Amino acid sequence: MNPHTEGHFQPLWSRDQWAGLPVHRSILSPLMFLERTLRVFPEKVGVVDGDRRLTYAEFGARAYRLANGLRARGVAQGDRVAILSRNSAEVLEAHFGVPQLGGILVPINPRLTSGEIGYILDHSGAKALILDTELAPVLAAVRGGLENLSLILRANISARHGGSSAEGGAAEADGPDYEEFLAEASPEPFVYPVDDEDHTISVNYTSGTTGRPKGVMYTHRGAYLNALAELFEVGLNAGGSYLWTLPMYHCNGWCFPWAVTGAGAVHVCLPRVDAARILALIEAEGVTHFCGAPTVLITLATECPPGFRFARRLTIVTAAAPPPPAIIQRMEEMGANIIHVYGLTETYGPHTVCEWKVEWNNLPLAERARVKARQGVGYLHAPELRVVDEEMRDVPPDGATLGEVVMRGNNVMKGYYRNEEATAQAFRGGWFHSGDLGVMHPDGYVELRDRKKDIIISGGENISTIEVERAIYQHPGVLEASVIGIPDPKWGEVPKAFVTLKPGAALSAEELIAFCRERLAHFKCPKAVEFVEALPKTSTGKIQKFVLREKEWAGHEKRIH
Amino acid sequence: MNPHTEGHFQPLWSRDQWAGLPVHRSILSPLMFLERTLRVFPEKVGVVDGDRRLTYAEFGARAYRLANGLRARGVAQGDRVAILSRNSAEVLEAHFGVPQLGGILVPINPRLTSGEIGYILDHSGAKALILDTELAPVLAAVRGGLENLSLILRANISARHGGSSAEGGAAEADGPDYEEFLAEASPEPFVYPVDDEDHTISVNYTSGTTGRPKGVMYTHRGAYLNALAELFEVGLNAGGSYLWTLPMYHCNGWCFPWAVTGAGAVHVCLPRVDAARILALIEAEGVTHFCGAPTVLITLATECPPGFRFARRLTIVTAAAPPPPAIIQRMEEMGANIIHVYGLTETYGPHTVCEWKVEWNNLPLAERARVKARQGVGYLHAPELRVVDEEMRDVPPDGATLGEVVMRGNNVMKGYYRNEEATAQAFRGGWFHSGDLGVMHPDGYVELRDRKKDIIISGGENISTIEVERAIYQHPGVLEASVIGIPDPKWGEVPKAFVTLKPGAALSAEELIAFCRERLAHFKCPKAVEFVEALPKTSTGKIQKFVLREKEWAGHEKRIH
Repeated sequence: MNPHTEGHFQPLWSRDQWAGLPVHRSILSPLMFLERTLRVFPEKVGVVDGDRRLTYAEFGARAYRLANGLRARGVAQGDRVAILSRNSAEVLEAHFGVPQLGGILVPINPRLTSGEIGYILDHSGAKALILDTELAPVLAAVRGGLENLSLILRANISARHGGSSAEGGAAEADGPDYEEFLAEASPEPFVYPVDDEDHTISVNYTSGTTGRPKGVMYTHRGAYLNALAELFEVGLNAGGSYLWTLPMYHCNGWCFPWAVTGAGAVHVCLPRVDAARILALIEAEGVTHFCGAPTVLITLATECPPGFRFARRLTIVTAAAPPPPAIIQRMEEMGANIIHVYGLTETYGPHTVCEWKVEWNNLPLAERARVKARQGVGYLHAPELRVVDEEMRDVPPDGATLGEVVMRGNNVMKGYYRNEEATAQAFRGGWFHSGDLGVMHPDGYVELRDRKKDIIISGGENISTIEVERAIYQHPGVLEASVIGIPDPKWGEVPKAFVTLKPGAALSAEELIAFCRERLAHFKCPKAVEFVEALPKTSTGKIQKFVLREKEWAGHEKRIH
Repeated sequence: MNPHTEGHFQPLWSRDQWAGLPVHRSILSPLMFLERTLRVFPEKVGVVDGDRRLTYAEFGARAYRLANGLRARGVAQGDRVAILSRNSAEVLEAHFGVPQLGGILVPINPRLTSGEIGYILDHSGAKALILDTELAPVLAAVRGGLENLSLILRANISARHGGSSAEGGAAEADGPDYEEFLAEASPEPFVYPVDDEDHTISVNYTSGTTGRPKGVMYTHRGAYLNALAELFEVGLNAGGSYLWTLPMYHCNGWCFPWAVTGAGAVHVCLPRVDAARILALIEAEGVTHFCGAPTVLITLATECPPGFRFARRLTIVTAAAPPPPAIIQRMEEMGANIIHVYGLTETYGPHTVCEWKVEWNNLPLAERARVKARQGVGYLHAPELRVVDEEMRDVPPDGATLGEVVMRGNNVMKGYYRNEEATAQAFRGGWFHSGDLGVMHPDGYVELRDRKKDIIISGGENISTIEVERAIYQHPGVLEASVIGIPDPKWGEVPKAFVTLKPGAALSAEELIAFCRERLAHFKCPKAVEFVEALPKTSTGKIQKFVLREKEWAGHEKRIH
């Protein structure tokens, strides 16, 4: 099963891959990363998934088998192939096998409802689906209406990780077993049909909180450049081991399926975020890097006993919300290096990084955490970032004037799949509009203040919910907090906080409001506090403010933004 | 002088730089690296050159002043601007200022003869020249014939490093003083005219040992990708400090003027290789990385007392010839990490790296050095490398069958400037022909055996001069060695070794030949040995075998290859 040592490994570039191109040009495509790693690290274990351990040669052969098998079943260049699975070797294989034949990968969030999954399969026109059989029941409800979907590959993935038995859904699925499918297909490499680096490699559907999900198109060029820049930014190389705390379906796992493979590092799969399992894998697999929302860090910090330190240097890349200072402090004390990044599905995941300066090492810890909580500057390959007013003028870099964060360049999506109107709207003025409001600091670093739709307008004043949350997080009893605007007859809207407490903590609404009034202008302080067991979250750990808002605004006229 | 804090810094991307491009595309150009660093690290000292220390804001303003000044003097997009200087801040400035206006930089080796310099200035049609005034006398002899050259900027560079007085040449030069020229020019950023990433950014003239130098064209895209990949391969980031042991004129310093600037690391200039100065700068400037030929390492190893260790981890990237095992061992004992790379002017400098595998750490030192001396595999961004026979078929990966190393892709030159015939010859079969002969090992790693023109054909057998040299280097008394073929009435040609000895070593030709016969097939052993004071070298430290050959072949029919 090792195409290299079996003697039939012929590198891509010996197969006249780019025969039509000038000598000094080759397509920027992450597929080249696998080709190189197949030559350099064929014998190295590259993928760990439960008790399955694949060398890169085995992994590469499986990707080619997937590509050849799909081709034999009539899947051709430009066709969409969806995958519905938790993090697994199969999702990584699909990141190579599908694009190898010129196909477009559609990764789907397994936590979505039947209706949402059906919509994505229908809208993308997926011809084939790789399905974790555990999720077959979710599909069954919508299977009937999907006329384009002619092939389902049933993969018994969850069972490897102690998931529920595959039998229930598998029987009703109408396609071959994934492993049998691979076994019957050829592992022979072939000349890729893609000859334009602007070809779409993947469509990632947003978990849009308003309206239908939109399909964000990534290109081969964009995926390549983002993967390469990720490696530089996080310092991952062939000595590294990457733990998959981040969902692979989410922005193609920030391009790490391609990046980790390119570096010749090790993929350590993790089907669901579980603190004990994370700590065990960090130890057993020598993990050097992982990515995740701050909630993953909070989970870890809570799990680890006081005084705990990781056995080796660990780099954690976190995004989605600014990590609370106390968590940054805790994780750094445990021996982790926290890199704070920010981006959106439309920017292949991370676009900015809070690029660290040595002189900040001398700041008091609280100040250091405050600086680190800023979103920062564009990645090395993605500097084109602005904060602009409604007329697309840069706001003054004063750390105070609010504007919208806009981006352009090689790490911005090609557009929304089959949705020209939404694309034109997002790209108005020649820039991608993030919908995030922020300020530009005098030192050129961006700091987000709020989502455009989350910001509270109270008596004509803007209130950044992030700013209020940050004040609340300073209270030692608070575990998590989320602030939204609620209707108010006098001010239009006023802030309300939803809070979860740390185990054993006791705190009243009045105490917390008083605590805030010592730290914030009074009009910014919550007028109401609700203590809850848990906050509603997306599967990537983002708090779903719209769920909180829906309840509060029932019976009122809905806020427009 | 800080465009950022003076408030007139407007990032490139706020100036409608790429207005004609789709939102998801920006030009791959190393100019973007400076633009980002101007935003992220304006206050940081980025360039150290003698007692001159420039912040990135100052450096950026100087680059823009150069660009604006040249534009005001009529230098326009596509025009060639040459620079004749040892390593200096000025050469770094030219790497940005000239391309900013769409110009093409022609860096010239200051050790060339007047005739060679005149040829390059004439062939490139350079309109302007930045001239280290110490080198003015070399120019004077050919100045008259250069009709295109309408502007010479006189830079008093060498004087900063204790070079000879500038007065001699300066008086006869026909242009303004570089510093005055900058002072009069505007530091205002402007929209770059380059809108095609395939635009030529630089022409590097080869030090071709046969015929006239050829002008190797680099593109904005190639320079960008190579710089980004260099950062990944050598692990350089904003915490790094890069010492300029490598000449900046040589393959644009392997793209490090752009890479170091992009990373926001520090450039530490060094006008000439001097072991004491290198050691002093490593200590004083916290150097983390440098690049250089093995001769630089030999110089350092000789200078340092036994037991010497660098104060911090140092990464040394070496190329040109496989580093002798003893030198690798010595440098590693001193705390340096040696990365062995290989490339040519036509491949932007390094194309391959001996990508290290952890399991090799357990090999005995001699074996480790032998493995590390292989040229290895293509860089992450440049995997397209083959070893082929005359019909462009891959040679078997047996570590024995000799073939020519060929490359293609984004790190291969666009072609030779104004030399379509040589370009077509170099690119025959759709691949760049390196002229280097090597073998492909079963593990996919390339090992060079010789330059096509250096290999010795003795009685119909190929003899790799590198293989013979490696045997000679194992002798503890040998400092440096070079082997060439000399005429022989019976065998056509036979090997002869030119050797320099370590201080205090005594060795006879008979002893050395006997030493080789214990290690090599007898027909490969030198038939003659000549002990010399020094070997002839290029300014980049490559041993000039053609100089040795010329003497030996005087009166004989010249070898064809």
